[in-house]
Amino acid sequence: MELWFTEKSNDSVGLTLLIKEHLYHKESKYQTIDVLESAYYGKVLVIDKVVMLTERDEFIYHELLTHVPLQYMENPLSALIIGGGDGGTAREVLKYRSVNRVVLVEIDEEVIETSKKFFPTLSFSFDDKRLEVVIEDGAKFVKETDEKFDLIIVDSTDPVGPGEVLFSSEFYKDCSSILKDSGVLTAQTESPFDLVYRPVIQNIYKNLKTGFKTVRMYLGSIPTYPFGLWSFAFASNRMDPLKEELKNPFIPDGLKYYNRELGRCVFNLPNFVKEIIDET
Amino acid sequence: MELWFTEKSNDSVGLTLLIKEHLYHKESKYQTIDVLESAYYGKVLVIDKVVMLTERDEFIYHELLTHVPLQYMENPLSALIIGGGDGGTAREVLKYRSVNRVVLVEIDEEVIETSKKFFPTLSFSFDDKRLEVVIEDGAKFVKETDEKFDLIIVDSTDPVGPGEVLFSSEFYKDCSSILKDSGVLTAQTESPFDLVYRPVIQNIYKNLKTGFKTVRMYLGSIPTYPFGLWSFAFASNRMDPLKEELKNPFIPDGLKYYNRELGRCVFNLPNFVKEIIDET
Repeated sequence: MELWFTEKSNDSVGLTLLIKEHLYHKESKYQTIDVLESAYYGKVLVIDKVVMLTERDEFIYHELLTHVPLQYMENPLSALIIGGGDGGTAREVLKYRSVNRVVLVEIDEEVIETSKKFFPTLSFSFDDKRLEVVIEDGAKFVKETDEKFDLIIVDSTDPVGPGEVLFSSEFYKDCSSILKDSGVLTAQTESPFDLVYRPVIQNIYKNLKTGFKTVRMYLGSIPTYPFGLWSFAFASNRMDPLKEELKNPFIPDGLKYYNRELGRCVFNLPNFVKEIIDET
Repeated sequence: MELWFTEKSNDSVGLTLLIKEHLYHKESKYQTIDVLESAYYGKVLVIDKVVMLTERDEFIYHELLTHVPLQYMENPLSALIIGGGDGGTAREVLKYRSVNRVVLVEIDEEVIETSKKFFPTLSFSFDDKRLEVVIEDGAKFVKETDEKFDLIIVDSTDPVGPGEVLFSSEFYKDCSSILKDSGVLTAQTESPFDLVYRPVIQNIYKNLKTGFKTVRMYLGSIPTYPFGLWSFAFASNRMDPLKEELKNPFIPDGLKYYNRELGRCVFNLPNFVKEIIDET
């Protein structure tokens, strides 16, 4: 019997995947968590019916969220990850020898447990002694901590449900106040292809600008995310990635997507995407 | 009643579109031609069950195939389009004031007729007096013509069936011999995401290298093509797009994807794509 899982990008477009087995289903305190074994993409993590990652293409998302900012920093020492309970973002950040402290604040412990059980190629990062896991609301953590970070990565779900607060102006201001002067925040900011999302994205970038002096968008091609095109924000109070040179003398071996030539080019946006953020 | 059209990118992954109406079906001498009215992407041209274009996202493919090479040319006068029966590639080339002659060689007259009937935003280019349409096998035309062109664009279907010959070494050599010294050939070269296609793409690039001194790959995000990521070849005997500056003083107004900053950046490939062509 052939089973297909279809995630609708909107009411009338979907990505459909042949599924070998539905490995896991859980209703956590915050959301539904499913793990599918797909025929092509390997295991798939699905939260609230939306694909969060697949084993085959997760490298693109995780490399873009981390190496793009880290290559602009000469000697990054510390990072705060908001969300990122699958461990993929932490895995990439921990590849930097200079990084001696990573704090990962995940609201839903069940995401971490699921990753530990089903996604060892991501969750092995939880064994790294430089990583501290805090089970808490990321917005609350950012408001209350006294620590300052070189890098903050918002690796969240979509701006609905538990993830919504992580796209607010107040949250970004709090992030800005716990970033070191030369620090950078990156965040996933949805697909810029669908016009329906245009006001959502514009709102995110408006909110980011209330917290940070410079806010830039960058892009990547991610086959299992809606429309195969995904956007990220790069926000800083001192650094403009379009003007600065890449500064990090170290680059991890074995990256599958990111390289230094690409690292600057991801900020060059197609006209239809430029229009979205030029209006904010 | 809800109708969905699903194009499988491979055996176990598909893109599925809600369809309002199946507008047209034709078995031509060479292939099946269908036109669907989709709920999201507007009208869709389907050849041999594969999506060729949709009204909503065709601009990405057509702009990349044309403006990337044309912006490297100071004063392009002539272009040869092999395939391209929908008219979209011709529309973009004809935006250049310097271009005074475009020859479009389409093997299947029915594609042109279908476009004229259902895709006026592409096929209006057939009314331009600078465009000459030749209904013939593109490989034969290239072998026999005495004319030389500044630009050759291979806007073909996939390398199976009638399109196969347009990816052969012999065809590329013939193209090279009818290019002006400073001329450029561009071609669509499939999706680099699926490893199954790796040998197919490697074969295309090997064949290109038998005809041209410099062969580069460039990329674009196209939501309705497999894996949302598509590759193009830029081949020339005198010009390396990674070393040359953009030379065209003219750029058309109103482009939705291409801009000059992006025009150079599209050649910077993710590592997993670089690997494919580094092996050729």
